[in-house]
Amino acid sequence: MSATRYTYLGPEGTFTEAALRSLPEAATRELVPMVSVPAVLDAVRRGEAAGALVAIENSVEGGVTATLDELATGSPLMIYREVLLPIAFALLVRPGTQLADVKTVTGHPVAQPQVRKWLEAHLPDAQWESAASNADGARQVQEGRFDGAFAGEFAARLYGLEPLVTDIHGGRSATTRFVLVGRPGRTSSPTGADKTSAVVWLGDDHPGALLELLQEFAARGVNLMRIESRPTGQGLGNYCFSIDCEGHIADRRVGEALMGLKRFCPKVRFLGSYPRADEVRPQLRPGTSDEDFTSAADWLSRCMDGRGEL
Amino acid sequence: MSATRYTYLGPEGTFTEAALRSLPEAATRELVPMVSVPAVLDAVRRGEAAGALVAIENSVEGGVTATLDELATGSPLMIYREVLLPIAFALLVRPGTQLADVKTVTGHPVAQPQVRKWLEAHLPDAQWESAASNADGARQVQEGRFDGAFAGEFAARLYGLEPLVTDIHGGRSATTRFVLVGRPGRTSSPTGADKTSAVVWLGDDHPGALLELLQEFAARGVNLMRIESRPTGQGLGNYCFSIDCEGHIADRRVGEALMGLKRFCPKVRFLGSYPRADEVRPQLRPGTSDEDFTSAADWLSRCMDGRGEL
Amino acid sequence: MSATRYTYLGPEGTFTEAALRSLPEAATRELVPMVSVPAVLDAVRRGEAAGALVAIENSVEGGVTATLDELATGSPLMIYREVLLPIAFALLVRPGTQLADVKTVTGHPVAQPQVRKWLEAHLPDAQWESAASNADGARQVQEGRFDGAFAGEFAARLYGLEPLVTDIHGGRSATTRFVLVGRPGRTSSPTGADKTSAVVWLGDDHPGALLELLQEFAARGVNLMRIESRPTGQGLGNYCFSIDCEGHIADRRVGEALMGLKRFCPKVRFLGSYPRADEVRPQLRPGTSDEDFTSAADWLSRCMDGRGEL
Amino acid sequence: MSATRYTYLGPEGTFTEAALRSLPEAATRELVPMVSVPAVLDAVRRGEAAGALVAIENSVEGGVTATLDELATGSPLMIYREVLLPIAFALLVRPGTQLADVKTVTGHPVAQPQVRKWLEAHLPDAQWESAASNADGARQVQEGRFDGAFAGEFAARLYGLEPLVTDIHGGRSATTRFVLVGRPGRTSSPTGADKTSAVVWLGDDHPGALLELLQEFAARGVNLMRIESRPTGQGLGNYCFSIDCEGHIADRRVGEALMGLKRFCPKVRFLGSYPRADEVRPQLRPGTSDEDFTSAADWLSRCMDGRGEL
Repeated sequence: MSATRYTYLGPEGTFTEAALRSLPEAATRELVPMVSVPAVLDAVRRGEAAGALVAIENSVEGGVTATLDELATGSPLMIYREVLLPIAFALLVRPGTQLADVKTVTGHPVAQPQVRKWLEAHLPDAQWESAASNADGARQVQEGRFDGAFAGEFAARLYGLEPLVTDIHGGRSATTRFVLVGRPGRTSSPTGADKTSAVVWLGDDHPGALLELLQEFAARGVNLMRIESRPTGQGLGNYCFSIDCEGHIADRRVGEALMGLKRFCPKVRFLGSYPRADEVRPQLRPGTSDEDFTSAADWLSRCMDGRGEL
Repeated sequence: MSATRYTYLGPEGTFTEAALRSLPEAATRELVPMVSVPAVLDAVRRGEAAGALVAIENSVEGGVTATLDELATGSPLMIYREVLLPIAFALLVRPGTQLADVKTVTGHPVAQPQVRKWLEAHLPDAQWESAASNADGARQVQEGRFDGAFAGEFAARLYGLEPLVTDIHGGRSATTRFVLVGRPGRTSSPTGADKTSAVVWLGDDHPGALLELLQEFAARGVNLMRIESRPTGQGLGNYCFSIDCEGHIADRRVGEALMGLKRFCPKVRFLGSYPRADEVRPQLRPGTSDEDFTSAADWLSRCMDGRGEL
Repeated sequence: MSATRYTYLGPEGTFTEAALRSLPEAATRELVPMVSVPAVLDAVRRGEAAGALVAIENSVEGGVTATLDELATGSPLMIYREVLLPIAFALLVRPGTQLADVKTVTGHPVAQPQVRKWLEAHLPDAQWESAASNADGARQVQEGRFDGAFAGEFAARLYGLEPLVTDIHGGRSATTRFVLVGRPGRTSSPTGADKTSAVVWLGDDHPGALLELLQEFAARGVNLMRIESRPTGQGLGNYCFSIDCEGHIADRRVGEALMGLKRFCPKVRFLGSYPRADEVRPQLRPGTSDEDFTSAADWLSRCMDGRGEL
Repeated sequence: MSATRYTYLGPEGTFTEAALRSLPEAATRELVPMVSVPAVLDAVRRGEAAGALVAIENSVEGGVTATLDELATGSPLMIYREVLLPIAFALLVRPGTQLADVKTVTGHPVAQPQVRKWLEAHLPDAQWESAASNADGARQVQEGRFDGAFAGEFAARLYGLEPLVTDIHGGRSATTRFVLVGRPGRTSSPTGADKTSAVVWLGDDHPGALLELLQEFAARGVNLMRIESRPTGQGLGNYCFSIDCEGHIADRRVGEALMGLKRFCPKVRFLGSYPRADEVRPQLRPGTSDEDFTSAADWLSRCMDGRGEL
């Protein structure tokens, strides 16, 4: 039954599965791997799954464009949770393989820049070929098509491989951020340490529009945490912006900034407000708390009655 | 009885009286001249008058500082109406005086720059001495202390003088703007062509605060019509700002800008929203009408329920 | 001979004379009082005096509009020095007068708000009438036209009067700022604690122009110290802005901000860069020192040659 | 010899080769395909090639992160030319293959979103697997590993394949932008229709830094054409920005904006100024032409000599 099913980008043994299993409720769900980010999300759109976990950003590789683009277009979805997973690769080989035997390696294209430095240092002559996923690379090693696959250490057992080298990463603090996505619904209550995501389309004819977008947030003391331009498909030079900001849509400063965007931008898609995985509470600029907004609204009402200074 | 009494800066025969008489309701009020702007306004504060008409700005001389400072400090007052009066001076003399006889002239200090060019051209050797008001200057001419007074032509009859020269002014379109002030009360309804006045104190320790003040208005597409810095009396370099903007406090864009100021500024005094004397309706920037604000607020509510795109 | 002559707003015994005498070089100059700010400055324009000292701003009363307007229009003048003078008034009376005898008082209109509170407390029934200057008020007391004059204590002896009450002022730290004005010439060298003055006209058709003006300074980390709107004489709603900023035109950040104004504003009048009387050195924002500008310019040149990172 | 050699992302038959051959000088160069973007660029860094052509942006898929990251880090390179290539795919098959026979397809990961809609409509059951490049996919079809490859029609002949379907694309005006990269050197002269690229690192501790970055350009009337955030590898939330703006570093408005960035940002890497492939000349905002900058600089010099209004 769909209410108990979560989809994720498979096959089994990917980092995404590991991230999904870190959610407490995953224990009581059926976890279904699928072949592509669109497939994962379409299952949710069609009601065949209650949720889907997809990578959205990596600290080395940047935004996961398939996810960003799927969330920006098509039938709307919303983000309800985020998961941060430190990423380290293992070089998985068939049992008995020595490092000197490794002539060909594979992995997801996103893994390539993260293992490149290691490859240059330790296997400068190895040929890289991309696989559909890290786990799919492991499967292809199992099948003998490649000598080694970069994947999570947890994938070794699943494919009868051995981790020859572990803890390979592309820089300090390599982390992937995943989001749990569902069909649009009521946002969860603010926790005080929240994040809000949206996609914003700017009018084409207005060069200063990105500056105005940032000012809507800055004017209310709301920090942007991520901004990513994505093509709209309308030709080079046409972008929409995928953004995350501190705070919850129910926070007055965030709500007012979003309404500001809604008023001057051709299109804004709200992607959700949800607890920050790092549980960091924002430092509020003076004058931007809910109490400040409420007391300013009270003052405005009193002003209209001539009691602004009472 | 106070409800039927309006005060103004006297004596009789000033431009202020002429401006006051241009208000329809003046016909049914007792019009009481007083000796100073503070006296005029204190009569309203004490409830001895229902309203007071005072000059606030002149197109040649600038802000009337006594009025600006009285409205900014002391017990609060509100502006309910504005009157624009084109200003042209007459040179009033005792009957029979010729231009060649005029050796000494007088008038309110505000009149001086407006008649200076005329004096240089026609009476370069005349001695100027300031009077408490233009009408008071006329009275002193009547008493023989000066040979000529610059005042409104309408003041001649009152003091038994003759207008020797008329239509003297300091530049094209010399205009004085007066405001009708009363005790704080409910603002009148928006007319679509309104103006809002306020005084804003910025924190001392923040050099960019004036920029932020302007941005609160700019971010909501509200044009500032006048901005005047006034010292706070706390030493050189400490200013408050007296401002007029387009629109009415009940207009959502104006209300939100005022609340923004209220949240980040140490003090904001709302001085009123009232019909523009020139009846000009503002050109709204896209996204700033009340409908735009309402539909953005509806959208925000729907977003919280997961129905942002319905 | 003009090179040794300085003019000031007379008559003798005004605060302006006291401020002028605080300049070391005043000891070797002929100090000539004149009847009005325009007269004082026109003497310099005509070459009849080498310099003129005029009040430009008071911490209680605000800008001295006659000075601001004279500097903004007419044949150009430049500011070479500023003087700050703490202002306290004495009530000057004819010898033997008691406080109870004082029924009429006089003084310059600018003095009125500064002595108002004292008058309300000690002479609530005294009649105020404006005089052309504080010293002129003293003269009129000498002549018997008024009972008391508010002026500097130093004016008493000159007019045979006695200071009945001293140290009257309108608030803590009442200070008047004077400027020494001369014909346009080379600015003095930067001292590290300088101030720059200018008048800026904004295009009429551009509501955000004041915001842009402020941003030209903010973008280069230059603090504005004073901004004063003045009517242009072209009708209500048309203003120019008289500004002081921290720093010297020869400081790169200040020069670049001024050039920015020059490029987008219809008219900018540079009024001079001169040592700050308070000798306060500005706190530079990172990236705004002359060294930062020079090294950025060097970097730009190297970039054009492909050596940006050398 | 290196001076006559250009590298590109091979194998032969890719869109990159087609783009490279559109450059007139390609006719006299040895064109060398290489296996990865890093390999292509490192050949230039080591002096083994005079230039390299790499894709940097696609109108459907967005920025080519391998290129963006290679240009941002490592030994500096510069962009000397850009090429725009409309992208349409052909489905290449072994001679005789019918559409109904196609069960497995391949292509570069970047091609996938561009052919996805076509696949859903015409081959909904076909299995996609990524190849290292579009041409490499063609080679694998030749070898029989896949039934069809998405690649440029021009690649068919090279691999003995036939274009079964042509003109497949992911949206209207699918275009890829390529850049010709070389070792740092003198920029070419401005043509009046130029573009400038740079990478900018913002300080971490400063939430408003992106706003300031945009303002450096906006203040000088320089339009940003592309802005792309890329992770710095220092953990989630740490970004640098890859930007393109209108104009040439030798244009005064662009140079001043770049120097502004250089002064307040921890690091700026200039990537070059080069002719726009679309040959569009920017619409200059008033006050931002080189003449405006020069005359403002002249004015500033005159101001220092007291001749600002001559």
